[in-house]
Amino acid sequence: MIDRVLATIEQRKSQSLEQLKEFLRIPSVSTKPDHAEHMVRCANWLADQFRFAMLDARVMPTGGHPAVVAKNKHQPGRPTVLLYGHYDVQPPEPLDLWNSPPFEPTIGKTEAGTDAIFARGAVDDKGQVWCHVEALLAWQAHGGVPVNLTCLIEGEEEIGSENLEKFVHAHKEELKADVLVISDTGLFARGVPAIGYGLRGLVYEEVRLDGPSHDLHSGGWGGAIQNPANALVELLATLHNKDGSVNIPGFYDDVAGLSPEERAAWKALPHCDDAFARDLKLSKGDLVGEAGYSTLERIWARPTCDINGLSGGYQGPGAKTVIGSWASAKVSMRLVPNQDPKKVQMAFRQAIRDRLPNGVRVTFTMDDHISKPVLTPIDTPAVKLAVEAISEGFGKPATFTRTGGSVPVVATLREVLGVDALLVGFGLPDDRVHSPNEKFDLDCFYNGTKTAAILYDKLATLKM
Amino acid sequence: MIDRVLATIEQRKSQSLEQLKEFLRIPSVSTKPDHAEHMVRCANWLADQFRFAMLDARVMPTGGHPAVVAKNKHQPGRPTVLLYGHYDVQPPEPLDLWNSPPFEPTIGKTEAGTDAIFARGAVDDKGQVWCHVEALLAWQAHGGVPVNLTCLIEGEEEIGSENLEKFVHAHKEELKADVLVISDTGLFARGVPAIGYGLRGLVYEEVRLDGPSHDLHSGGWGGAIQNPANALVELLATLHNKDGSVNIPGFYDDVAGLSPEERAAWKALPHCDDAFARDLKLSKGDLVGEAGYSTLERIWARPTCDINGLSGGYQGPGAKTVIGSWASAKVSMRLVPNQDPKKVQMAFRQAIRDRLPNGVRVTFTMDDHISKPVLTPIDTPAVKLAVEAISEGFGKPATFTRTGGSVPVVATLREVLGVDALLVGFGLPDDRVHSPNEKFDLDCFYNGTKTAAILYDKLATLKM
Repeated sequence: MIDRVLATIEQRKSQSLEQLKEFLRIPSVSTKPDHAEHMVRCANWLADQFRFAMLDARVMPTGGHPAVVAKNKHQPGRPTVLLYGHYDVQPPEPLDLWNSPPFEPTIGKTEAGTDAIFARGAVDDKGQVWCHVEALLAWQAHGGVPVNLTCLIEGEEEIGSENLEKFVHAHKEELKADVLVISDTGLFARGVPAIGYGLRGLVYEEVRLDGPSHDLHSGGWGGAIQNPANALVELLATLHNKDGSVNIPGFYDDVAGLSPEERAAWKALPHCDDAFARDLKLSKGDLVGEAGYSTLERIWARPTCDINGLSGGYQGPGAKTVIGSWASAKVSMRLVPNQDPKKVQMAFRQAIRDRLPNGVRVTFTMDDHISKPVLTPIDTPAVKLAVEAISEGFGKPATFTRTGGSVPVVATLREVLGVDALLVGFGLPDDRVHSPNEKFDLDCFYNGTKTAAILYDKLATLKM
Repeated sequence: MIDRVLATIEQRKSQSLEQLKEFLRIPSVSTKPDHAEHMVRCANWLADQFRFAMLDARVMPTGGHPAVVAKNKHQPGRPTVLLYGHYDVQPPEPLDLWNSPPFEPTIGKTEAGTDAIFARGAVDDKGQVWCHVEALLAWQAHGGVPVNLTCLIEGEEEIGSENLEKFVHAHKEELKADVLVISDTGLFARGVPAIGYGLRGLVYEEVRLDGPSHDLHSGGWGGAIQNPANALVELLATLHNKDGSVNIPGFYDDVAGLSPEERAAWKALPHCDDAFARDLKLSKGDLVGEAGYSTLERIWARPTCDINGLSGGYQGPGAKTVIGSWASAKVSMRLVPNQDPKKVQMAFRQAIRDRLPNGVRVTFTMDDHISKPVLTPIDTPAVKLAVEAISEGFGKPATFTRTGGSVPVVATLREVLGVDALLVGFGLPDDRVHSPNEKFDLDCFYNGTKTAAILYDKLATLKM
């Protein structure tokens, strides 16, 4: 049966790509208040696609952007699979760095010479969601997917899934499942498929400093009052130590160490700092991080503190001799097991308040953009089946990897539904996720679709 | 005769205000490349006004925005006065903080309860230039101004007068004068007119740090590469010492100290830190600056280093977990006698290069936005006449003050023409120069016009 499903996927390749383009043309940027209508349009479009696959699909309200929930007819004796994904995307800015418009999906060559589809959301996460929808459509042509399936595709992943926890609590029964499948990560490298077992958590803060009541002439006042921009850089500069570690009291208290086995396993992975740096047009010497850790360890197993945005004073062309009345920074911390986001957030704010220079007032304008770090067991029957599925789908043996990014819902779903996630990702490290010219290799797109189809076939064999 | 001139000024009050409004409606923002046509329009408009006063006016090309040069018929035996001013203005941003549109001049109440005209350029410098034009118009009604007058009104003061030096050299003969008059500063306070004798110099830099070739997902890369925004705050935070002094090697080498007499004279001025802070909605404790100096000393006699702009990463609404590929800052240093801008600029760049964190490259994108500090003698016959003129014009005894701002041309004109400036300013400390809601008190506008008329009358008595 699976062979016929895969044959259908092969036949439908071009239709599938056209459908993905439709999906990508909708600018579903969740963080922009004025994009709310696009969010609703995107959710409705996606629900329709699930209906084509004969699922019962509904666009359901949350405290924020709606979620799409789709189910096939559940039959007793079959394992129940919960598929999670998100239809929202990151802002496309800076627009001038895109080689093609972010919401006009374009087929082109990657720097590696492969073919890919370029668009915001191409791989994060619309493209990977579409792999599953296409797999369902193919299965539908052959009697339907052989598991009890519930799909939950949300619209707020890129803004911290702020309303999802309440939503999952409210629909606990409806979402109950034996296995959770998420395709929002990636291969370790081209030709090296992987199953993820770790995600970093997140605390995202906006720190705003206010000084004088209005902008001032830097000649008339400079030197006699606190300049909020001066104060901001002085403040933010205290967040790191010389050795690259984060300088926030208690920040490392709960950080889980790395086992010698894990460090050894990662050393064995085909990672090359030179190539890693070259992809960023940097040299190996430009790789800067916490002393005593390798690049993979720094990304997968160590917490960070990064400035994601800086604003203050005059930013237009040329010169303006002004002391801005305020300055602000967006700062995010990536967390690792077993750090507690709430605890880290409080420690961060306390450190900022304790170090606040004279003459400015601080405001924290974001509260709920946090998520917990995750480690999932890798010795379960479901994980073994996932390894088989992606190995067959990509025609190469799969390895185990962690991810430096965060998928807030994973921790939430484990807590509420008691189910662990299978992180079966189809992206590549050079996909420019969150950046201009985001893309999804067409090979990954097709192999990902096959993997999804195979995975459902294998999960059907799970004994519950 | 002067009485009849002053009577004419009194009669023409409302026409004069309407003319100023026309001047202010032209958005002559010199730093914005796309405003070039407005600059030309403004120069031509101003030249026409000089012609109404029967001066021979020309709009003359420079390497950048044009300069307006206007002369009356010079007669032997009369002293020659050079009037300098500028018709360009600072950018109006941030627009949302203006109570009325920056280029729609509006009459309203100040926080002090006085009447004023609100607009970008109201006092810096269009309003003060107009005081002189109006004085010339009034004199014209009575046979013309009694001195040989040359007016030089440039369009690049707010961007460092980059092309003026070459222009002045090229037209040295034509601009030759015995006295230089500049109205681009202000009173010490309401009811306390002043003659300025010192200006700070300026070095304006834009420092840009580039790291990875494109924006990166802060989860996928955070911790393993240098974040240009992190590097920028670390770098800029090194520019000040704990005691508020500037931490650039050699920065203070040439700084002229303050004489006990000068410090005593400034202590005697009616300055109040509480009121100074209150005007900024701050408390006295918020006043931060170099240890060991009073507020006036910090503004008038000590050099500074201020961040005028900060940009990096994502600055839109909400959250974006991105590591920007670059970050930049606009930084200006105010200089005092006898600092050399070129020397300070080199010291600044050397310090930045010496302290540059790993993993980023630095670019300095501004070179010529510098000006020299100035001190002018206060015991000359011309200065004594200027003190009389402004004391009569405002009906209060004048004092001597310095200014924290910079008027680049003053040093240039002294060097090229060998003439010292009379800094006869009509503004007030609360005029919001360079800020939203810039204004010019109507009393200052009218008394400034009278002062200009009286000044020309008195300067006519100068023996050459």
